[in-house]
Amino acid sequence: MQTLRQFLSPAPSRGFRYRRLPSTSRIPSTARHNSSHARNLHHQTPFHSSAAEAPQQQQYPDPLPSTNPALSFPCLDHVETRSATLSRRAPGAGPEPSYTTGRTDTFHSTDPLLLDWGGILPSFAIAHESWGTLNADRSNAILLHTGLSASSHAASTAANEKPGWWERFIGPGRPLDTERFFIVCTNVVGGCYGSTGPGSVDPANGERYATRFPILTMEDMVRAQFRLLDSLGVRRLYASVGSSMGGMQSLAAGTLFPERVGRVASISGCARSHPYSIAMRHTQRQVLMMDPNWNRGFYYDGIPPHAGMKLAREIATVTYRSGPEWEQRFGRRRADASRPPALCPDFLIETYLDHAGEKWCLEYDPNSLLYVSKAMDLFDLGAEHREMIAGLRGKNQYKLDAYRQGETLETAEAADLCTLTLPETPYQETGDAEATLEEAAAADIGASDEPPADLVAGMRPLADTPTLVLGVASDILFPSWQQREIAETLRKAGNKKVMHVELGVEQSMFGHDTFLLDLENVGGALKRFLER
Amino acid sequence: MQTLRQFLSPAPSRGFRYRRLPSTSRIPSTARHNSSHARNLHHQTPFHSSAAEAPQQQQYPDPLPSTNPALSFPCLDHVETRSATLSRRAPGAGPEPSYTTGRTDTFHSTDPLLLDWGGILPSFAIAHESWGTLNADRSNAILLHTGLSASSHAASTAANEKPGWWERFIGPGRPLDTERFFIVCTNVVGGCYGSTGPGSVDPANGERYATRFPILTMEDMVRAQFRLLDSLGVRRLYASVGSSMGGMQSLAAGTLFPERVGRVASISGCARSHPYSIAMRHTQRQVLMMDPNWNRGFYYDGIPPHAGMKLAREIATVTYRSGPEWEQRFGRRRADASRPPALCPDFLIETYLDHAGEKWCLEYDPNSLLYVSKAMDLFDLGAEHREMIAGLRGKNQYKLDAYRQGETLETAEAADLCTLTLPETPYQETGDAEATLEEAAAADIGASDEPPADLVAGMRPLADTPTLVLGVASDILFPSWQQREIAETLRKAGNKKVMHVELGVEQSMFGHDTFLLDLENVGGALKRFLER
Repeated sequence: MQTLRQFLSPAPSRGFRYRRLPSTSRIPSTARHNSSHARNLHHQTPFHSSAAEAPQQQQYPDPLPSTNPALSFPCLDHVETRSATLSRRAPGAGPEPSYTTGRTDTFHSTDPLLLDWGGILPSFAIAHESWGTLNADRSNAILLHTGLSASSHAASTAANEKPGWWERFIGPGRPLDTERFFIVCTNVVGGCYGSTGPGSVDPANGERYATRFPILTMEDMVRAQFRLLDSLGVRRLYASVGSSMGGMQSLAAGTLFPERVGRVASISGCARSHPYSIAMRHTQRQVLMMDPNWNRGFYYDGIPPHAGMKLAREIATVTYRSGPEWEQRFGRRRADASRPPALCPDFLIETYLDHAGEKWCLEYDPNSLLYVSKAMDLFDLGAEHREMIAGLRGKNQYKLDAYRQGETLETAEAADLCTLTLPETPYQETGDAEATLEEAAAADIGASDEPPADLVAGMRPLADTPTLVLGVASDILFPSWQQREIAETLRKAGNKKVMHVELGVEQSMFGHDTFLLDLENVGGALKRFLER
Repeated sequence: MQTLRQFLSPAPSRGFRYRRLPSTSRIPSTARHNSSHARNLHHQTPFHSSAAEAPQQQQYPDPLPSTNPALSFPCLDHVETRSATLSRRAPGAGPEPSYTTGRTDTFHSTDPLLLDWGGILPSFAIAHESWGTLNADRSNAILLHTGLSASSHAASTAANEKPGWWERFIGPGRPLDTERFFIVCTNVVGGCYGSTGPGSVDPANGERYATRFPILTMEDMVRAQFRLLDSLGVRRLYASVGSSMGGMQSLAAGTLFPERVGRVASISGCARSHPYSIAMRHTQRQVLMMDPNWNRGFYYDGIPPHAGMKLAREIATVTYRSGPEWEQRFGRRRADASRPPALCPDFLIETYLDHAGEKWCLEYDPNSLLYVSKAMDLFDLGAEHREMIAGLRGKNQYKLDAYRQGETLETAEAADLCTLTLPETPYQETGDAEATLEEAAAADIGASDEPPADLVAGMRPLADTPTLVLGVASDILFPSWQQREIAETLRKAGNKKVMHVELGVEQSMFGHDTFLLDLENVGGALKRFLER
């Protein structure tokens, strides 16, 4: 044991003159560090262990011990190690990982695609996989839409035997019955698993699009998918089926092309994004964009923003699962109760999130996450929005015509379109609870059981399409009220063939992820819907 | 209009030989960039506008235009401008902002404080403010506990006329009636508004604690507060009152010192943190710790991690408010509908979050956020946890004794305590829904209406204390089931004086923030409770 007096006396000097510090008053700490030195410490222990690393004019003796030991940060060490590993990869190969999930078929369209918000894809590829056999009259095709980050690999194939993300849902006698149906699943445009996305090369300049990729919508992705269906000779789908983002797309397909879609199944989807889900995706995009390695999207030759991707996935994972399961599975258990608490992952729920982020941070292209997640925010089947987009498409049709004729826009005009700045007066919190409650009362929020008229009008194209709407009570990202909204809107629009299923907490505690896990309830409802 | 042919032909050369690029196939992009060049682009437009910035051996002509314009990122420009501004501040002053909120009283304790997890504060300060007058027998004192990031400035005082965070709740005839009560509010230990926290100087070495500050608990904060009460001669509180984290502390005060607390009011608090709230605080800590400026806590002489703080606050803000209010207030409105969508804030809900982060990012010490938020995670009034901590305190008492006698621990032992690493086998997702459902059924999750026996045992010290428990149905961070858990636990422990109030969505749509806003319902319930 050392005495306290020993602690307060000068430490063994390395030949420097020791400056006695006042022990209780605050001292201007610039007397001891400067900021560049402080920043170097990010990769060091917090002690000034090496005088050589300090600037010449500031040399210190060994420090006095602190009252308590410094915390360690193994979680940061781990991230830094990965950065170092990625930067050591062979320069020829580039550090950018390959996002392929295995062999797929690829459809190439050389006819340019005009996007809803005015962007143009001069050409594009759609990676796709299929199961079952297309019948002679091509009437048994089901288009399966994916969630945000999934590939076309929904189930194992001869070319890729790895289990897919809906492995148990596809096969003979399964909900997507391969003895009866021809099921095709695509990687969405904007994705990174073989379809054209921000990581693809822009034919105009031979460089990767990065954040020169145009803003996308669900409907743009669906239009690209229907080009693939055209190439397969599928005029009319038996059904459009999807979960999560795929649920949005399934509804979008039925709304855009009612005459080409026989049935629509939307599982844990929505008719329009609501503020909580936009907010949660916003935070994911922001943490990713704040990673210096993101480099405004131009990281393809550098270190990918794996730290930002890890964080984004951790936030996303919170929204994918829900309270009841976590209460039971993790509760308040710590990863190692024999250790003192730490600021790095410590509770079991934290190590679960950390692990989810670790597993994923090099599995998906960061720019694809930004564009596809933004497309989800923009989704809105309301009539006002649909009409606005229709108007915009009309206005921009000349771009497509010009492009097809070998002309293009002047850069100045195009650049002006995309310089969104924040409004000059940002949103102000009023703090006036009464006023807002009155506004809410006036707007009848939560009081009305009627679906919004704007949505009824916008979804009217689906009035004759048999539709399955499935929601999960424990889902916080696409909450069950959003599923009820779809079902009630369709009924109000005159649809007499709406099958609405809501799984209560006693049926599923898995929140939004239920669609990936619950073969019995989700698969069962889907099978009944497709076969009736 | 330029023709497409013009786009595909060489741009005006600056004397470099132009290399024609294949226009449709992917090219190894390392042929055109290298990673250090790519990283420089973070502060540039994505075009290679200046050949001088490219490495010597790689010089290119002006680039070909891309099909679509590059997106702009005003939100990142803004963050970079703030970094530059902070780094330009006078070196003497240091860029670290001062977190004071105005004049407070300060209590200094020179008797060391042993913390629950074994840390020691050799001495500490408690900033506090008070309203009303302590009566002759010192029986009318109310200790008011704050939320996570609040200062002691709950209401305006003669010394600081700025409105406080509970301005309308404190005053003559108000819920905390200054004609009747003496109300004292403190900044918590670990905070940054005048009480000792990570930004304070460790007397052992004259340096700021930073992440050498010891891990804290709610009970540690309460023990420090009771030292202040001792100094004021307040033996027994009329009541302990708090909301959010303050609700935890209010319960902790009553549990630690039942004989010294006359009544307990816990508003939107909990008896123990649950996984969703731990997860959301985890993501806030992680985004902050991932900001390079955080520098493992040693940023006091450099640029504070304002970008990480902004992100952390944005995530926190999602948990402070809730769906119904946002649906009504923001809906799907965009900040400027005349602009095309952007990856920077775009929807009104995004600009709201962005603004909340902007306002706060230099208002609170980042290390305080980490320590205080961690202390919230660690909160658990269950008997098993309380007994474990009691055992640990007994085991560590010798440290305090040694410290008081002028001795201290050997550094090696202390350091070993704090090197938590992740478990070797991280949590594995089983993907087996059926198995988990069976486990859940076996554990009777959600099925039991009985409060957990462990919690009933741990909260038994409160069996005779009149207690107000107030919850808000729209709160997702401290959900109303957690308030019911407190009330039912206390009743089960034999408490016959539990007043449980739950505000439905028709009374408040403001989620967790209701306690700051709702004078009528929250204030009204509190007033009735204190005066009955």
